[in-house]
Amino acid sequence: MGEGQHHAEYSNYQGDLSKEETLQLLVDSYEAVSNDTRNWVANLSNASSLVWHAYHSLKVPVNWSGFYVINPTKPEEELILGPFQGKVACQIIKFGKGVCGTAVSSQKTQLVANVNEFPGHIACDGETQSEIVIPIIKDGKVYGVLDIDCLALEGFDEVDVEYLEKLVTKISESNDF
Amino acid sequence: MGEGQHHAEYSNYQGDLSKEETLQLLVDSYEAVSNDTRNWVANLSNASSLVWHAYHSLKVPVNWSGFYVINPTKPEEELILGPFQGKVACQIIKFGKGVCGTAVSSQKTQLVANVNEFPGHIACDGETQSEIVIPIIKDGKVYGVLDIDCLALEGFDEVDVEYLEKLVTKISESNDF
Repeated sequence: MGEGQHHAEYSNYQGDLSKEETLQLLVDSYEAVSNDTRNWVANLSNASSLVWHAYHSLKVPVNWSGFYVINPTKPEEELILGPFQGKVACQIIKFGKGVCGTAVSSQKTQLVANVNEFPGHIACDGETQSEIVIPIIKDGKVYGVLDIDCLALEGFDEVDVEYLEKLVTKISESNDF
Repeated sequence: MGEGQHHAEYSNYQGDLSKEETLQLLVDSYEAVSNDTRNWVANLSNASSLVWHAYHSLKVPVNWSGFYVINPTKPEEELILGPFQGKVACQIIKFGKGVCGTAVSSQKTQLVANVNEFPGHIACDGETQSEIVIPIIKDGKVYGVLDIDCLALEGFDEVDVEYLEKLVTKISESNDF
């Protein structure tokens, strides 16, 4: 970070960038910010903020961006809430349940155009219409998920998948879970 | 939580409550939400959201609400960033440095009307004007701090101290750090 630059400035995306440029800047900013520590709570907290501000600069009505991680007290069964931006969220999600739980059990990104049509969708917020969830995988093991909710239907597409998977790869490499 | 209520609804404070009523609701909502788990990451993530939405319902221009916790790799020396709402933040704060570090070393709430006049203030965001920091103490030991920043001078007063200290007492009781 340059002399005199505040950490908060990483959240100030320019409004005139393309979607691809904004999401690449998100990936690059995460890499810069996470350089100081391998503490996952600190890095995932800043990552939630970077994701939130990137999508808001693109005028995508994201209402929740954050993480669920493997619950250390039930590591074979469930996710527990991690750092996020947005409204209060459900604490526990069982593997295989809802969009997040499906991302864990399938180890695959879930791109959901309409959450109301997703079997077993868990509504932490009844206003959410679409969602994307990317599993954080290292050496074949899932450590958690990046979860982003949107107030609009079809809030995310293959471009989001491409860049958010890049972000999550960086997250899996830069943290000790 | 009532049948059919979403977790997100805890973030929806009514705009016509007094400051005291809103802050008491914040304390009560934290107690309800944290009832499910003693996992500190999950509970502090939801607490950050409750604080953010409480102050925004009161039209207080809070630009950051969240936590720093004792860095597990340097527990005698420094705080590390925990869950928060707002823009990207500094990861590490040394004990005794800035408003947060002073709250740890003094074990006392810091109510700062103008951060620019606080000796050794650490500016994660140059736009912050006032700040309140409450240490999380259990059995005489500090586990972290609740930190709230405001874009206005004198954003907080003795009413905030009273209710936020109640909140932090609940936080210290309801989590395994």
